[in-house]
Parts: sequence; structure tokens; C-alpha cells
Amino acid sequence: MCTPKRIVHRKGLPRRGMRSFMALAGLLLGAQALAPAAPLPMAASVSVLSATDPTGRQQLSEILKQPSDTVGALQYTRDLADRVGARLAGSKGAELAVSWAVAAMQKAGLSNVRKEPVRVPRWLRGEESAELLGESVQPLRIATLGGSVGTRTPGSDAITPIEAEVIEVDSFESLAKLGEKVRGRIVLFNKEMVRSRDFQGYADVVALRGRGAVRAAKQGAVAALVRSTGTGFHRQPHTGAMRYEDGTPRIPAVAVSAEDAELLHRRLQSGESVRVRLRLGARLDGEVDSWNVIGEVPGRSQPDEIVLLGAHLDSWDLGTGALDDGAGCGIVLDTARRMAHAARTDSTQAPRRTVRVVLFMNEELGLSGARAYAAAHKSELAKHVAAMEADSGAGAPFGYRVTGGEPAQKLVQSWLSPFATLVPNEVGMTDEWGADLLPLQAEHVPVVGVAQDVSEYFEWHHTAGDTVDKIRPRELAQAQAAFFALVHAAANSETRLPPSPRPSRF
Amino acid sequence: MCTPKRIVHRKGLPRRGMRSFMALAGLLLGAQALAPAAPLPMAASVSVLSATDPTGRQQLSEILKQPSDTVGALQYTRDLADRVGARLAGSKGAELAVSWAVAAMQKAGLSNVRKEPVRVPRWLRGEESAELLGESVQPLRIATLGGSVGTRTPGSDAITPIEAEVIEVDSFESLAKLGEKVRGRIVLFNKEMVRSRDFQGYADVVALRGRGAVRAAKQGAVAALVRSTGTGFHRQPHTGAMRYEDGTPRIPAVAVSAEDAELLHRRLQSGESVRVRLRLGARLDGEVDSWNVIGEVPGRSQPDEIVLLGAHLDSWDLGTGALDDGAGCGIVLDTARRMAHAARTDSTQAPRRTVRVVLFMNEELGLSGARAYAAAHKSELAKHVAAMEADSGAGAPFGYRVTGGEPAQKLVQSWLSPFATLVPNEVGMTDEWGADLLPLQAEHVPVVGVAQDVSEYFEWHHTAGDTVDKIRPRELAQAQAAFFALVHAAANSETRLPPSPRPSRF
Repeated sequence: MCTPKRIVHRKGLPRRGMRSFMALAGLLLGAQALAPAAPLPMAASVSVLSATDPTGRQQLSEILKQPSDTVGALQYTRDLADRVGARLAGSKGAELAVSWAVAAMQKAGLSNVRKEPVRVPRWLRGEESAELLGESVQPLRIATLGGSVGTRTPGSDAITPIEAEVIEVDSFESLAKLGEKVRGRIVLFNKEMVRSRDFQGYADVVALRGRGAVRAAKQGAVAALVRSTGTGFHRQPHTGAMRYEDGTPRIPAVAVSAEDAELLHRRLQSGESVRVRLRLGARLDGEVDSWNVIGEVPGRSQPDEIVLLGAHLDSWDLGTGALDDGAGCGIVLDTARRMAHAARTDSTQAPRRTVRVVLFMNEELGLSGARAYAAAHKSELAKHVAAMEADSGAGAPFGYRVTGGEPAQKLVQSWLSPFATLVPNEVGMTDEWGADLLPLQAEHVPVVGVAQDVSEYFEWHHTAGDTVDKIRPRELAQAQAAFFALVHAAANSETRLPPSPRPSRF
Repeated sequence: MCTPKRIVHRKGLPRRGMRSFMALAGLLLGAQALAPAAPLPMAASVSVLSATDPTGRQQLSEILKQPSDTVGALQYTRDLADRVGARLAGSKGAELAVSWAVAAMQKAGLSNVRKEPVRVPRWLRGEESAELLGESVQPLRIATLGGSVGTRTPGSDAITPIEAEVIEVDSFESLAKLGEKVRGRIVLFNKEMVRSRDFQGYADVVALRGRGAVRAAKQGAVAALVRSTGTGFHRQPHTGAMRYEDGTPRIPAVAVSAEDAELLHRRLQSGESVRVRLRLGARLDGEVDSWNVIGEVPGRSQPDEIVLLGAHLDSWDLGTGALDDGAGCGIVLDTARRMAHAARTDSTQAPRRTVRVVLFMNEELGLSGARAYAAAHKSELAKHVAAMEADSGAGAPFGYRVTGGEPAQKLVQSWLSPFATLVPNEVGMTDEWGADLLPLQAEHVPVVGVAQDVSEYFEWHHTAGDTVDKIRPRELAQAQAAFFALVHAAANSETRLPPSPRPSRF
């Protein structure tokens, strides 16, 4: 890869030198080469480069400095988490988050700041408790899964506890083998999540949370108790979304802390009958209006071409949504703020294409914001040259991911070379990257993104412990720098990413 | 120090060789020397030593082996935490714990198993919630401190929330400086606990929890909100005891999670008015009868001399009391079980003095079990040759502590030398060691104990996360081995510890 010395300290790039610079990077790297538009002057000082900053490397260096206490991704994140706090779609918090986002974008100097309508479910957790029965009645630490029904007498609003014997499985296969033994029972799905740097650990178990209730109900179970989909061992349950399907009874689905899943396991292993009582007030209260919040840094030469930089504004109700996805909101807002500021200071520094920030509503409970955006913007999706989403917490970046196969991989590699040593240099291929981007990718919008270390993210994901103190400021800054490099390149490259294949799961 | 090779692999000690062995240890070490009673035969095999095991080193080695799944300190701890669970004095759980302890002692082969009466307060937590008020109302994670009143209309049982502005201090000194500014406010005591290997970090802040409400009330505050006395950053509040004093208004006292204390701090730092609403159902419901549980391994030659091995049976109500003090109960029960078993197998292996296990009720809410024991046994306290308590969790041991000054220190050093390399060799002097031993030490009973690493203990201490999975089995075994060596020596030594000076805080 080219070294910073050869590229960055290249002296005296003219203001229009971005194109030349990209070409140089391409030539040096043997990646997609563009003809230089002008010879490169060699005698000016670094400060000239800093002033014009055609590659954005100066801005990227600013991001990577010791994070400031007054401005930056961390401050957006902290403000959203501390002042708005929990913001489950359909809640008062989500409404406040929308107002917050509009104000933040306006203050950041973005253009065309607007709200676009989204219908969201209004799911209410209500009271919830679970007890391990016996001579000693022990409370279990649980969190009803998002979308789940409560324990109510059919045809009534009254909460009526259910009690049943627990039967334990660690997979859908072991559930199926139990056949009729499941009838009338509470199924405990008890599979420990592996702590991994990437999403593999999560991917291996998340179906138990999302589909466990349906699978258990098909065999006659009365409730699903799912070991927390997360790696936390702090007796905080990890909530998250679950789904029902038509034609299958809707039974309650509840996350249980890792500690309590292991307690139930030990009690079952000793051969005794283990009974649990659940008392759950959860219910779905129809749909309400909400909003995606959108703002832009207009492109200077191809303004109708769009680089979409997304994150989601909603969070779960237990924590303050600092990691999920306050950090993502902070990353994209501060990145756009920096680009808008640079463009205002010097119009030639405006990105070639329009950078559009989309803070999606309701990622967590069904992606309705993402679907609404894709539907509302269907006619311009062909002009979406790249879409990326920051939704992996605040961990350090270790690579990039692209959906368009090898040509996309090679192009992104060439894009990143001017930023070498400041951002990761591994570019991997993936089937999808970012839940809110799935409806766009289904229309072949090219999807790219940053791979962040999520091994700590999943300690706190969807728990009450998702608070700003879990963020290491310098790692968040590194993640933002990695995003910045990608969006800057996508917004300025002469070459566009190839279309994405449709994601396999959407 | 003497090496294991010179001491342990000494071959063919006769059954009566314990005394000789102690003498040898003393001679080799230059510590308190006893005249050998017989020459040491040199030709027998190690297995002979194992069979007679006069020093207990064989038993100690058994403790240190990979902990068994079926018997040992961990199994006692797990059984108590998993099957009884939370057992706050005065609760149903505490009653069950008493029955459990009696059965456990009987099954362990202890003699004179009995219950001795203790009066305990019955403090009920009830419902509890706290909210940070404002446009966005955010729940704070709190736990009412043990002994605190709730928020009730005077003269009524109805819970009436209180709301007030928060004022922050980090010490009693900074509180005093605020004078009248405190009137009508909720005082936030926000001092971060330092994570330390010993109890220093805890000692530095625990007064804010215990006495914060009284200090704040003297200046007219309406409630005390105390940053959790613990090092956890998992949004679980750490509860614990607090006290009132006559003549000062009884205001509610609540622990708040570290995360929420920092949130309040950030909001206050921004210069805004921060209001909190507290809704607390806590109340004291008089006193009820409970019990200390006691069992013994009778001494073979000085049965009226007592080595007291204590732990406390009660726990806080939030977790399952695995670390505090299930682990201590496990350590002392399994230690006594091993000694009782050895004595049954070979009566010459019975300890010289009586080893008395005392599982104290109500350590957490006022030491009434410890006071009751001291009062009931007043006439035999002069015969208590040593008292030790296991109440520091399940961390690895790093030293010993004695209260009797340098003579005690030197004696304990000589006691431990036969176990060198298997147990810690640092013996330090201390003012007190074990809350339940304070009433005994006030009568000059010699107090000794094991110093365990508590840097993880205080992550979970008094929280919902105090569960058995936090225990590392091998560290618990090491802690037990350290206790075993001490109790074995105290029960068999020809030399007694000097009397303790009275503790400064009792």
C-alpha cells in the first residue's frame, strides 16, 4: 500500500487536485487508474494541502485527535443518550429523538433537513416478572422480547400469570426431537453466545430469539424463555425483537439473563422438575406516526447522485441507546457536519456527489423506517451510488465490507489507499451490511461499510447497561475516521461501485 | 522459608508426630520452637504421612485439587445460592437458609448441631423507582439502602413520591460547606470507589452509604442518593446497610448505579437544574425471631477450648448471595466437614481443640447474630482461643491478618510454615478482621483471618449480579486452603494467640 509519506506529504496539490490525487493513488497501487488531469506540483508546503484538503485526510486527522469535549461524534452520542435516553419506536422518547435529530442537523449546517413519515408499531413492555417456583421462590431477571404478547386472559386486558414446567433445548433441532414433550411447557432456549470480534457469535444464536416462540408454539409450548442474545454476565437481560407468524399461536417470548439461564440449567440437570411463573404486561397498541430524519451535504458537480450515510434513531427501552445506535448517529452526524463545514469554508471542498444522512426510525422493531425510505425514494434509488450504515456500536474498526463482489472490493481498496495507516486496510466481501440498508440493497443499491470490533458491544447490546460510559472515546473516533474515509471517497470518486446483488435474507 | 521437600516429604511421621512436626517446623524456621517429643523416623513412605496426616497438609492438598463437582466449598455455595437464593435476615429465604444450614452441618458429620436464637429486623424493600425529570423522563437504576424508610405520607401507609432538585457532593466535607443550600434538596453523594485488592477502596467510601442520610438530613435534605458503594459498571445498583440516629429526621436513602450517578453528574455539570422523583415502598416491619446455626468438630484433648470459624448465613435480597457470603459458608462448612471426616476415620486426627462453625444470622443489617452469640457465650469467651470469619467472597488469598500485634504475627507465621508454597506467606497486622467477630474482639478474643483479593468481589457485592457464576472454582479452593491451614494450626498449636486489643470501631 502507499505510505502516508508518499501520498500525504506530497506537496502543493492544487485545489482541483483531488482527481489527480485519486489517480495517483490508483497508479501507485495498481488499482483502478485514472488519467492525471495535471502534473503534480512538488514544492508547496503541507499547510497548502491542509487548506485545500482535497482528499479529506486533514479532516480525518482532526477526527482522530484526542476527542474534544465540546464537539464530535461522542458529543452527539452523549447528548442523544443523556438528554433523550431510551427511544423505542412509538414512544415519547422516539418523538423527542426526532426533534433532537432535526435540531442537530440544522445546527450542523446540513441542507434540506426534513422529516419523512414512517408508520411504527407501538409496543408497550408494561410490568414484567418471572419466578422460579419451589420452596424458595426466586426472582429471575427477564426482559420481554419486543413484539411479544403478555400473559393475559384471552378476551381480557387483565394480566394473568402463567405457570409451567420448563424444558430446555439448545437449538431448533433439539426442540424438534422433543416432539410432544414440549406441549404445555415453557421452552428454555439455552445456547451461550460466543464472544467474537465480528457478528458471527450473534448470527449463530439470534434466530432463537427471533423465531424461538414460533417454533416452540408449533409444538404446543405455552411460552419461550430465551437465554439472552448477548455475552453479558451482569444479570441484565438482553431484549430484542421477535416475530410471530400467522396461523401459529402467539405465546409470550422472554429473554432471561445468562445467570438465570444457567441457574435453570443446573436445577434441571439435577433431575428435578423446574417450574416458572411469568407475569407479563406486554402488548401491541396499534401503529402510530413517526419519522425518518434526513439532511444533506449537497454535491457540487453531481448533486443528483447520492451517497447515503445511515444510522438508526430509535433504541431499545432498557438502556439509553448509547451504543445502539447513539454511536452510529454520532458518527454520521459529525461526519456530515465536518463535510458541510468544509464546503461552507471553501465550496471546492464540497463533495462531488450529495451526501445524505438518513437517521432511520424503527430499525429495532421491523425496519419500517428503512422500508418507508426505500418506497418514498424508489425513483431515485438508481442514483444512490453507495449506501452505508453505522450500527455496530463504538468499537475500533478493523476492516471494510462490500457487497458487490471483487470489483467492489478492488475499488474500495483503491479508495482507501490515501488514508493508509489511519484506517483499516482489509476489505472483505459480504452478503449484506446494515439492516436498514436491506430494502435498498433489494433494489441493487451498492452497500459498503465499516467492520468494527463488536466483542464488547454485545456485552451491553439491548440491555439497561447500554449507556455512554461504555464508549471508549478514541475507539469511537477511529470508527468515525474509517467511515469518513469511505464516505469521502464514495462521494468524490470518478468511478462508481457496481450494483449489489440482492441480500439473501430480504 | 522451609521448602515442601524438607517438610512434607519427610517420611514416616508417627501418628503422634503432629507435635514433633510443629516443633520441626519451628526449628527449621527459627520461629517459636517446641521441643520434639520423639526423633523423626526417616524411612516410611509418603502414603503413611497421608494416612495419618498430622499436619493436615494432605487434606489441604485435597482441597487444592481441581474442585470436584460433587463435594467441596463450591458445592455448598452453589447449593445455598441456587436452592435458597436471596436470604435477607427476617425473610422467608433466611428461614430456609437456617434449615439448610442445620441439614448441611448434620450431613457433614458435625457434632452438637444447633440453632441459637437471634432477633432480627424485618426490613421490606417494596416497590422502588426513581426518575430523572425533564422533557424526557428517564428511569434511574436504584436500590433502596437496607434500613431506609420509604416515601410515605407521615402517619399513612400510602406511598407518595417525592420530587426535589439534586445537589451533588463527593464527601461529608463538601456537604458541610454547602450549608443551607442543601435544604429541601436530594443530596447526591457521588464518590467513585477505587478498585483495590484489599478493602481500602471500600473503606474509603462506605461511610457515605452508611451515614450519608443522617448527614444530609441534618442540613435539611429530603433524601440521600448515594453512588453505589462498589466498582460495578453494569447498571446494577449496590445496596447495603444505612443507619439513622435519634433526633435526626429519617430521610430515604437510595443507592444509584454508577452509570446513573455519572449521568446526573453530567447533567448538573451542564449547569441545568436536575430534578429527581423517588417512589419507595421500603419500611421496617418490626423484629422477628431467627437463628445462628452452630456445629462442631469436638477437640480431642482440650475440647473446652474453641477455635471459632464463622461466616454469615444471611445475604442481601437482590442477588443470590453467592459471593456474600455463600462462599464463606462454603469455605467453613467444607473445612469442618473434612476435619470431622478425618476425626471419624482416625480419632488421633481430631483437632486438639474444638473447632466451632458459627453461621451468623444478620450480618448485613446490624450484626444482631454476632451480638447474640457473644452474649450467649459470654462465660466461655475466655476459652475462645481464636476466631476467624470467611466473608470476603471467593477471590484468591494473598495473605493473613492478625489483630494481636507482633507476637500474634510471629506465631501465625510459624503456624503456616508447614504449608509453605500452598498458602500465602505474608502475615499482616490489622485492627479488626470480620464484622461478625467485632463483639468477640471487644471481649479480647484473638481474631485472625485470610486476606483475599476483593477487586472483583466489589464488582458484584450487594447487587443482583452476586451469583455463583462469578466464582472461579480454583480461586475459591485456594481461599479455602488458606483458611484450612489457619484453623488447623489454631486448633492444634501448643501455643495460643495473645488476646486481641478491642477494635476501634465497636
